[in-house]
Amino acid sequence: MAARTDIEIARVAVKRPIREIGAKLGIPVEALIPYGHDKAKVAQGFVAGLEGQAEGKLILVTAISPTPAGEGKTTTTVGLGDALARIGKRTAICIREASLGPNFGMKGGAAGGGMAQIVPMDEMNLHFTGDFHAITAAHNLLSALIDNHLYWGNALDIDPRRITWRRVMDMNDRALRDMVVGLGGVKNGFPRQTGFDITVASEVMAILCLARDLADLQDRLGAIVIGARRDQSPVHARDLKAEGAMTVLLKEAMQPNLVQTLEHTPAFVHGGPFANIAHGCNSVIATRTALRLADYVVTEAGFGADLGAEKFFDIKCRKAGLAPAAAVIVATVRALKMNGGTARADLGPEDVAAVERGCANLGRHIANTRGFGVPVVVAINHFTGDTAAEMAAVQAFCAAQGVQSVLCRHWAEGGAGAEELAHAVVALADAPSTFTPLYPDDMPLLAKIETVATRIYHAAEVVPEAGIREQLAAWEAAGHGHLPVCIAKTQYSFSTDPTRRGAPSGHSVPLREVRLAAGAGFVVAICGEIMTMPGLPRVPAAESIRLNAAGEIDGLF
Amino acid sequence: MAARTDIEIARVAVKRPIREIGAKLGIPVEALIPYGHDKAKVAQGFVAGLEGQAEGKLILVTAISPTPAGEGKTTTTVGLGDALARIGKRTAICIREASLGPNFGMKGGAAGGGMAQIVPMDEMNLHFTGDFHAITAAHNLLSALIDNHLYWGNALDIDPRRITWRRVMDMNDRALRDMVVGLGGVKNGFPRQTGFDITVASEVMAILCLARDLADLQDRLGAIVIGARRDQSPVHARDLKAEGAMTVLLKEAMQPNLVQTLEHTPAFVHGGPFANIAHGCNSVIATRTALRLADYVVTEAGFGADLGAEKFFDIKCRKAGLAPAAAVIVATVRALKMNGGTARADLGPEDVAAVERGCANLGRHIANTRGFGVPVVVAINHFTGDTAAEMAAVQAFCAAQGVQSVLCRHWAEGGAGAEELAHAVVALADAPSTFTPLYPDDMPLLAKIETVATRIYHAAEVVPEAGIREQLAAWEAAGHGHLPVCIAKTQYSFSTDPTRRGAPSGHSVPLREVRLAAGAGFVVAICGEIMTMPGLPRVPAAESIRLNAAGEIDGLF
Repeated sequence: MAARTDIEIARVAVKRPIREIGAKLGIPVEALIPYGHDKAKVAQGFVAGLEGQAEGKLILVTAISPTPAGEGKTTTTVGLGDALARIGKRTAICIREASLGPNFGMKGGAAGGGMAQIVPMDEMNLHFTGDFHAITAAHNLLSALIDNHLYWGNALDIDPRRITWRRVMDMNDRALRDMVVGLGGVKNGFPRQTGFDITVASEVMAILCLARDLADLQDRLGAIVIGARRDQSPVHARDLKAEGAMTVLLKEAMQPNLVQTLEHTPAFVHGGPFANIAHGCNSVIATRTALRLADYVVTEAGFGADLGAEKFFDIKCRKAGLAPAAAVIVATVRALKMNGGTARADLGPEDVAAVERGCANLGRHIANTRGFGVPVVVAINHFTGDTAAEMAAVQAFCAAQGVQSVLCRHWAEGGAGAEELAHAVVALADAPSTFTPLYPDDMPLLAKIETVATRIYHAAEVVPEAGIREQLAAWEAAGHGHLPVCIAKTQYSFSTDPTRRGAPSGHSVPLREVRLAAGAGFVVAICGEIMTMPGLPRVPAAESIRLNAAGEIDGLF
Repeated sequence: MAARTDIEIARVAVKRPIREIGAKLGIPVEALIPYGHDKAKVAQGFVAGLEGQAEGKLILVTAISPTPAGEGKTTTTVGLGDALARIGKRTAICIREASLGPNFGMKGGAAGGGMAQIVPMDEMNLHFTGDFHAITAAHNLLSALIDNHLYWGNALDIDPRRITWRRVMDMNDRALRDMVVGLGGVKNGFPRQTGFDITVASEVMAILCLARDLADLQDRLGAIVIGARRDQSPVHARDLKAEGAMTVLLKEAMQPNLVQTLEHTPAFVHGGPFANIAHGCNSVIATRTALRLADYVVTEAGFGADLGAEKFFDIKCRKAGLAPAAAVIVATVRALKMNGGTARADLGPEDVAAVERGCANLGRHIANTRGFGVPVVVAINHFTGDTAAEMAAVQAFCAAQGVQSVLCRHWAEGGAGAEELAHAVVALADAPSTFTPLYPDDMPLLAKIETVATRIYHAAEVVPEAGIREQLAAWEAAGHGHLPVCIAKTQYSFSTDPTRRGAPSGHSVPLREVRLAAGAGFVVAICGEIMTMPGLPRVPAAESIRLNAAGEIDGLF
């Protein structure tokens, strides 16, 4: 077991020059745009030049329903990537970028953990290469153009009450959720009620992560619906001629970022959309670039497989034409015990029965993932206190499902601790892909929501609030019926009640609100309370964050 | 004359690798943190290691009162820098960074013009190295901590009506000037009225530009006064324990940015505070770094010499202990004609009498600058239509003042066109500096304002609005009496009436408001309408900005 914390390990990591990391994937040094010595963007021209290249195997790392015990999805993504590299495969890792703002509330998120981390961890949690700042600027430019349009006469006849486009900031700031702007008289415009979301909730973020290239990015930005006219017809960003300038603001951000693991495996860290109101995975452009440069690409999706993997398959893979070759479902003994009803405080003692009860959750995710035609292996991410009997219970359960399970020790041992998992993944991925999305494009929108709810969540029904059927029908009539759906619900349960762990069935899913993300290309179905601008806690982490005498950052992790 | 536009020249510029530019100043490659191939930050450790090194000569480029005709202050700064390099002097240029937001209103600002430019121009007008985004984030973190403190019980007893700290965004967005935040009920906090300024107006920007090092930066951030308690005592950022996390957000931004001119002269482009409510010059840390690496450092200050040079001398040089060796006052025949009463539409025909009348403005700036003990040379920045008689009139005027004037053609010819100016500057700067600030630190605050108004603006009096004398006295009692003053007034006239060109005297200066910038270390005296959040015009430049087929940015310039 590593006795050091993640940040202590990351701080002493000896990073190789980023050109050496690029060289492992055949990226020439002139195609790397350096940001410091250990980060680079891969130049747009080089990325575009890969069009048509043969693509490697795409491996998704997903997980059981999350609990406070932690599952280690990113850690396993990194460990598996390192292990594939160790067994001689040309490998790249693709994960999301971190949001800046939340670091000042709770402690910052590591990119992996233990000996399976991506570095430089501190910069990845702060400004990194500026992508999120660019997204913030592009989003808020559109916002400014909307209010400016109202100010100068409102030629488009936008209904100020029907403007749905808000502003964004990469900060946890609850005071900005709901506000009246435009006060102060004639020179400041027209007062109206609006608010800020956190940047990762921006549709611009989702667009950047789904766009094929800069031209597609600009088209999608233009297609954003910002609100409606007084006749209720939609107003698009292109009606305000916003998409060109927004694209200019995003042209650097569209280039994938390249960094490295502690074992110097190339890692693309690019894009970071919310996993509830958006699809929660890294950018298509990074994944595609990685696939054209590597034989194996290991990526992950947000939350558990019911939300993250479903969106990865039905939104990202469907729309980008990606065919995942295998999926790894990460479970820990501790998280299975919590899914089996154990309280966090009681995780210490051995409890094989709780593990066995919790395996119902794992079983549901295994079946769901297989339902997409994607072969599955279970990674049991080993924690110090796990007992032999508990681990054996998980392995017996998986064997009964006809699924291989592998005990992994990458947290303590790095890639060496995940070599068995790597071999299992290679074997699974050898077969031709039989991936198919859950529902066809031409299914009606409400039926798509119902399909996800019944097939994936095992719900009995979806109950839309008043007006939602009509809204979905109107979008279908306007040509948006082919879009996939993006369901925002609690990640802690298959139901909409976060306390119902395990594998609940037969529940009712309330559909409270639907939102059209016409630029990103999905319809958001909100099934529960969704917070798009977090607040800070009573004692924010910001109070303890500072530079120490060595110039290192204390308090961030 | 160059027939190409600035952007056409900049686009085809052949830039040298930034390590070669650093090498000209003896910066080792490992002390350069690359941002792409043509921009770098100079590493904090290297900068700190220069402490105690001998310093070169500091040359200020300032100008007559600005007019719509344009003076070419930055162009002359660049041209002089290139010329000094051409005549064999080890030279560095120091200018401010550009603000992102205003580019989407009017066309973006070049960094110089013609053959005297700093590149890469497009990136310098967009995200550059992310400094302004970092300043925005640090500023808004403090804002979020304030509202969060109110939300969690307001232990400091902050009076919500007396919070003066607003939020910032690098965007022209008039709807954000005045707002009520915290609407929506208990979970969103307490409603209160506030607003956004543009990022360059942030006190964090002024602090970054005046701080000696990271420790001084943190002290100054902690000293920010964000408002007052119910007992009217000041609340500081350090009371909210904000300064450590703000410093962490700014640690990269504190490192000077290195780029190059078209002739490959090293240029530090770092910091960009407003020139009205702040001091309007590039960072102390960049200037100091440049002085320790070069024999001649050419820098500029905002607006005309009455505002820009006065603040450069009385705020930046006084507080940083800098002693400028010489000043260049830039004038053009066209701008002198406008100062002599000619309308912009009538600038075409020769008008020697108008030039002679306008020279009163030049004369005032010459005398003012000399009053600081700084020797002066006048640079006549040549425009195509200037006639020989007009130029001779300026030269005769300068000769009568005992000041050398030099005709410069750097716009058309690059550094070669400013070699005579370079020789003149070297000769002036050879004498030991006799620089002294305008007023002593221990003069009362109102007397400092009156001294600037009467000695520099030639006003008859300063008329403070009700309560201002008491406010200034209260700050003196609280220990802020030693601070310099930063006067915000129109840049177009020595008076507070922007239409009074030339050299008006005997006017009255209304003092409308005073603001304490305790972190930056000055008291702002507002003498006129000051806009701290611009709006967009009826047809914003954003509508025309886009990537062209070659991937270049059209419409930005």
